[in-house]
Amino acid sequence: MSPEQYPLLSKITYPSDLRKLRLEQLPNLCEELRNYILEVVSKHPGHLGSSLGAVELTVALHYVFDTPEDLLVWDVGHQAYAHKILTGRKDRFETLRQWGGLAGFPDPQESDYDTFTAGHASNSISAALGMAVATKELGEDRNVVAIIGDGSMTGGLSFEGLNNTSSFPNNLLIVLNDNNMSIDHNVGGLNKYMVDITTSKTYNRVRYDVYRTMKRLNLIDERNRRGILRFNNSLKGLITRQPNLFEGFSIRYFGPTDGNDVIRTVEILQDIKDMKGPKILHLKTIKGKGYKPAEEEATVWHAPGKFEVASGKRIKGNTGEAVPPNYQEVFGKTLVELARQDERIVGVTPAMPTGCSMTYMMKEFPQRAYDVGIAEEHAVTFSAGLAKGGMVPFCNIYSSFMQRAYDQLIHDVAIAKIKVVFCLDRAGLVGEDGATHQGAFDLAYLSTIPNFKVASPLNEHELRNLMYTAYKGQDGPMAIRYPRGKGVLVDWHNEPKLLPIGKGREMQRGEKLAFLTIGPVGNIVKKVVDRFKDSDNKLVGWYDMVFAKPLDYDLINDIMQNYDAVITVEDGIIRGGVGTQILCYLMENGYKGQVKRLGIPDQFIPHGSQDQQREYCHFDAESIYEQALKMLNL
Amino acid sequence: MSPEQYPLLSKITYPSDLRKLRLEQLPNLCEELRNYILEVVSKHPGHLGSSLGAVELTVALHYVFDTPEDLLVWDVGHQAYAHKILTGRKDRFETLRQWGGLAGFPDPQESDYDTFTAGHASNSISAALGMAVATKELGEDRNVVAIIGDGSMTGGLSFEGLNNTSSFPNNLLIVLNDNNMSIDHNVGGLNKYMVDITTSKTYNRVRYDVYRTMKRLNLIDERNRRGILRFNNSLKGLITRQPNLFEGFSIRYFGPTDGNDVIRTVEILQDIKDMKGPKILHLKTIKGKGYKPAEEEATVWHAPGKFEVASGKRIKGNTGEAVPPNYQEVFGKTLVELARQDERIVGVTPAMPTGCSMTYMMKEFPQRAYDVGIAEEHAVTFSAGLAKGGMVPFCNIYSSFMQRAYDQLIHDVAIAKIKVVFCLDRAGLVGEDGATHQGAFDLAYLSTIPNFKVASPLNEHELRNLMYTAYKGQDGPMAIRYPRGKGVLVDWHNEPKLLPIGKGREMQRGEKLAFLTIGPVGNIVKKVVDRFKDSDNKLVGWYDMVFAKPLDYDLINDIMQNYDAVITVEDGIIRGGVGTQILCYLMENGYKGQVKRLGIPDQFIPHGSQDQQREYCHFDAESIYEQALKMLNL
Repeated sequence: MSPEQYPLLSKITYPSDLRKLRLEQLPNLCEELRNYILEVVSKHPGHLGSSLGAVELTVALHYVFDTPEDLLVWDVGHQAYAHKILTGRKDRFETLRQWGGLAGFPDPQESDYDTFTAGHASNSISAALGMAVATKELGEDRNVVAIIGDGSMTGGLSFEGLNNTSSFPNNLLIVLNDNNMSIDHNVGGLNKYMVDITTSKTYNRVRYDVYRTMKRLNLIDERNRRGILRFNNSLKGLITRQPNLFEGFSIRYFGPTDGNDVIRTVEILQDIKDMKGPKILHLKTIKGKGYKPAEEEATVWHAPGKFEVASGKRIKGNTGEAVPPNYQEVFGKTLVELARQDERIVGVTPAMPTGCSMTYMMKEFPQRAYDVGIAEEHAVTFSAGLAKGGMVPFCNIYSSFMQRAYDQLIHDVAIAKIKVVFCLDRAGLVGEDGATHQGAFDLAYLSTIPNFKVASPLNEHELRNLMYTAYKGQDGPMAIRYPRGKGVLVDWHNEPKLLPIGKGREMQRGEKLAFLTIGPVGNIVKKVVDRFKDSDNKLVGWYDMVFAKPLDYDLINDIMQNYDAVITVEDGIIRGGVGTQILCYLMENGYKGQVKRLGIPDQFIPHGSQDQQREYCHFDAESIYEQALKMLNL
Repeated sequence: MSPEQYPLLSKITYPSDLRKLRLEQLPNLCEELRNYILEVVSKHPGHLGSSLGAVELTVALHYVFDTPEDLLVWDVGHQAYAHKILTGRKDRFETLRQWGGLAGFPDPQESDYDTFTAGHASNSISAALGMAVATKELGEDRNVVAIIGDGSMTGGLSFEGLNNTSSFPNNLLIVLNDNNMSIDHNVGGLNKYMVDITTSKTYNRVRYDVYRTMKRLNLIDERNRRGILRFNNSLKGLITRQPNLFEGFSIRYFGPTDGNDVIRTVEILQDIKDMKGPKILHLKTIKGKGYKPAEEEATVWHAPGKFEVASGKRIKGNTGEAVPPNYQEVFGKTLVELARQDERIVGVTPAMPTGCSMTYMMKEFPQRAYDVGIAEEHAVTFSAGLAKGGMVPFCNIYSSFMQRAYDQLIHDVAIAKIKVVFCLDRAGLVGEDGATHQGAFDLAYLSTIPNFKVASPLNEHELRNLMYTAYKGQDGPMAIRYPRGKGVLVDWHNEPKLLPIGKGREMQRGEKLAFLTIGPVGNIVKKVVDRFKDSDNKLVGWYDMVFAKPLDYDLINDIMQNYDAVITVEDGIIRGGVGTQILCYLMENGYKGQVKRLGIPDQFIPHGSQDQQREYCHFDAESIYEQALKMLNL
C-alpha cells in the first residue's frame, strides 16, 4: 500500500493506530478506506454497498471504543470490510473470500476483533446482550456494541433480543445502521415505522441536545441514578409524547442522525458510551455511499462482481457464446410459467427476490409474489397459511437460511401435511460465502421430517419437471433443492412433465460398481462414468435417485442384485444424508457388497470456489474416480 | 350431559346452535362451560388456567363469526378447550389427551374447526395472515381471526408476522388474549409495554367509542376507503398521540377491554368484524378465571393434574413411599450445586423455569438465572454471548422447542465452538402432549452439527455426571438430552464425576446378540437382558453408548468382533439417529452380522401415555424381547 495513495491508511495496522489520529483527520481516512475497498473489491468480488455505507460508523466505533477490549458485534458481515482493514488484516484484504484467505464475514477464528459469527442475519443483539450481561455480572469494565442493519431488524431473533434487552442489568449499546435496505429493499411495518421516526425528528433531536447540554453542565451524573431519572422526567415534561418502539422496550433511544458524518458520529458515541443501561443509536446511512453507481442502484451493487472503478462498468464473464443459465433463472422463469396456468400459484421469499429470481414473478404478478423481509420462520408459516387459504405457494429460501425454519417445517407444515412447495436455493457447497452459508445440512434435516417429499434435479430440465410435479403431481409438503450457479444445459427450456414420486432412474447400466447420486453432482459423476466407458463399457453403472425421500427402494433392490459395490455421491453432509439412508436400507436387507458414501464431511467447510471445496471434500471428479478404482481393485 | 346441570350447553353441539342463543344468555353458557371444563379436567388432567380464562372470548368468537366458514386460528392450544367443546366434540371431551381420544391442542386432522396446528407458540399471526391474504386475493368472503396470548407474543415468529401484517392486502383480525402470563409469568420489554397500554386507556377507549358512534351514525362506510381515512384523520385531530406499537406496524388497535365480559366482547367484535385492513383487539383476561384456586396461583394451575373441584385440593399419586425424582428435579438441583462451586455458571430458560426446574437456580442465584420468555432462538444465541463474555451457561430447552433454534445451534454456537451446555428436557416420547411436543428429532438434528457433543444419561446419576462433565471435562458445545418424568433411582444424589468424552460402557457381556442403547431407554432394555439372564447368562450383551456424538468406535469395534447380531434402541427417530450412525459404521467396516434399529418410526406419534407410545413404536420391553428372540432364531 503506497503512502502516496493512502497517506493515513498506510500507517494504520490496528485500531490503536487509528486512535492516534486527530478527529478532523477522520473524514480523510474514510475517503482512503472507501478507495481501498473499491480498489480491492472491484478485482476480488465481494459485498460492496453495505461496506461503503458503513465506513464512517466503523471508523467512529474503533476511534471511540477501546477494541478489542471493548466488544463490537456485527450483524451480517456485509458491512464489515472497513472493520477488517482496520484490525490487522489490511495486507491480506486482497485474499478476501478466497480459499485460505480472509473470510467475507467476521469470523472469531480469524481475529480477536471479530467477536461473533456473522453470516446469518439478526443475531447480534442477542449475542451482544449475552456479552453485556456477563460483563456486568462479572464486574468487568468494558463496553459491548451491537451494530445491526435495518434489514436485519425484521428477523424474529432481533425482536426476541430487543424484548430481552431491558430484562437483565447491562449497558449494551445497539447501533442501528439504517440504510432503508436489506439486500433488495426493506419491507414491513417496522420499516414504515422507522421512516416515520426519521421524518419527524424534532423530539429525538431535542432529546439528544437536552441530554448533551445537561451532561456538559454536569447536571447529569451517570453514576447517580437519580440524575438519570431527573433527566428522563424533565424531558417527558418538556415534550409530551408516547415512547417510540424502542423506548417501548425500555431502551433509551438516540437519533436518527447522519451516520455518514464521521465527526458527528464520534461525538455522539463519546457522549453516550458511558451511559448506564441499554441504549440504541439510530444512524441513517446511504448504501454504496461515496461511489455514485452504487448509490444509484443499491441492489445491483450489493455484490456486483468485478467492475472498473472509474467507469462503474461491471465486467461480465460472457464471451458471447451461449451458456447455460443459472438454476435461479430457471426457477424464476418456470414459476412465472406455472403461475400463468393457475391463479392459485403464489411466490414467497424472505428478502431474496433478486438472489432467487422471484423478481420475474414480482414483475408479472405483483399481487402474488410476497417478499416478507428477512423472516424465514414467517415465510414458512405464512406459506402454510396461504395454502390453507387455497393457494399453492412456492416458498424459496436459501438452504442455509432454511435452517431457521426447521421447526416451522415440522410443526406448521408437515404435521398437517400442508401442500407447500419449498425451493431451497444455494443447496450444497456455495463457494465464497463460506462456512456460514453452506447449504450442507438440508438433505439430512429435511429427511428427518415425516410426510415430506425431498428431491433434487440433475439439471435444468429436471428442475422444471420437479417444480411442475410438486405443483401438479402430489399433494403434500415437498422440497426441491438445487445449487448456486450455472446449470449444464444451454437449451434449458423443456416442456415440464410429471415425474413419478419417489422414483429414480437408471442413467447407465454397469456390472460391478454402481454410482447412486442425487442432484447436479450427478453431472460430475457422469464424467467419471464416461471415463470408465472409454475403457470398459460394462464396468460402472450410474443411477440418479432424484428423490431423497421417498427413496426408490425398487431401484435399490435392483442395484443390490446386480452390483458388488456402491458409491453414493451427494452435495450435502454425509451424516444423515441420502447415502446414509441408502446404506441403512442395503444393510438391513442383507447386502454384502462394499458401500462408500461421498459428500460433505462432519465439519464446517471454509470459503473458496465451489471446485476447491468439492476437492477438499473428495467429491470432485478426480477423487470420485480414484475411489471407484480403489473399490474395483483396479 | 344432564340438561339439569347444563341447561344451555347440553343443547349445543355446533356453533350454529350457539348462535341461536340470545346475547343475554351467553354469561350463563360461559358459566356452564367453565363448570364442564372443571368437571372433566379435574379427572382427566390437562391445561386448565388458560382455557378457563378464554371461555368468554371463545363464546364471543363463535357467536359473532360464522365458523367454520370463518377461520379461527388459535395460538397454542392451551386456551382452546371451550372451542373444542363448542365444535362437535363435547361428548368426546372426556377422552382428552388419551390414546385415541381428543388431542390436547387444536388439530386440523381432528376437526374442520381447527384450522391450524397449535402446539408450539407464536405461529398464529403468520398462519392466519396467509389465510387472510389468500382469502382476499381469491376474492372470497370470509373472516380470519388469530387468537394469541401475550406469552406467545414474545416469540420472534409473532413479530415477523406482525411486521408483515400490513404488507399485503388483508382483513385479518388479531385477538390478543392478554392475561399477563405465559406459563410462568411474562417477561421482557413487550410485557412492560402492554402493561403501560393497559394503564393508560383513555385514548383507546375514546378511539373505540368515537369509531362506534361514527359508524352508528353512518358516518363511516367500510366499503368506502375515504370514510376510513376520514375517521383516522378525525381521530388524530381529536387526540394528539404517537401510534402505539401495533399502530406503528400499521395495524389498527382496539382496546384494552375486559375479555371476560362476554357481552361487551360480542358487541366489539360485531362492530369491528367488517372493518377493512388488519386490526388487533386487545382483551384483558384472567388466567384461571372463575375458579378461585386457579386465579390465585396461575402457574400451579396451568396444568394441575387431577384435583377435587370443590376443595381445590390437588390429588397427588404419592403413597408415602420414596420414589425416584423427576429428571427435571435432578437437573434443577444439580445446576444449583454446580453454580455454588463456580460463579461463572448461569442458567437460561425460555419461559419454562417451573417445567424444567430452573426455579431452584432462580431462587438461590436470581442474578444468574435468565428466563427470556418464549424465545428459543434468543435463548441459544444469548447463551453463546454469555459464554463469550466469560460465563458457563446451562441453557435448558424442551427438545421439541429446540427445533426452533436449530440454525442458532449451528451458526451461533457450533461454528465458533462456543462452550454452552444445552439441556434438552422432554426428549423422546412425551406422552399426553402428543405429536407437536414429541422430542423425537433431537438426536438426529444435533448429530448433524459439526463440533457438537451429544449425550444422554441412563439414569439420574449419569445425568449429574454428564452435567458435571459438560462443565468441567470438555470445552465446546455439548447437549444432554433426557426425558419427561420419573427417573429410576430413589437414592439419586451421587457425587458427580467426570465421564470420558465419547465413551460408552459395557453393562452386560454376552455372546450372540448385543443391545446398544442410549439414554433412559436402556432401563427398559435392562429388563429384557435380565429376562434372558434367567435362561442363559451368556446369550445377550448390553452396552450403554452414553454419547451419540462422538460415538465410541472402540466399543463398537469390540462388539463387531464378538456378536452375530446388534439391536440399537433409542427414544428418538430411527432415521438419522444413533442407531443409524452405528449401522453405517458397522457396514463401512465390513460387519456381516444382522443389525436392527429400534426407535421412533418416520411418522408423527399421537398423544397417549408414554407406555402406549413406546408400544406403538415397538420399543417397549415386550417388543424388544420379541425382536431379540427373532434375531436369535429362538
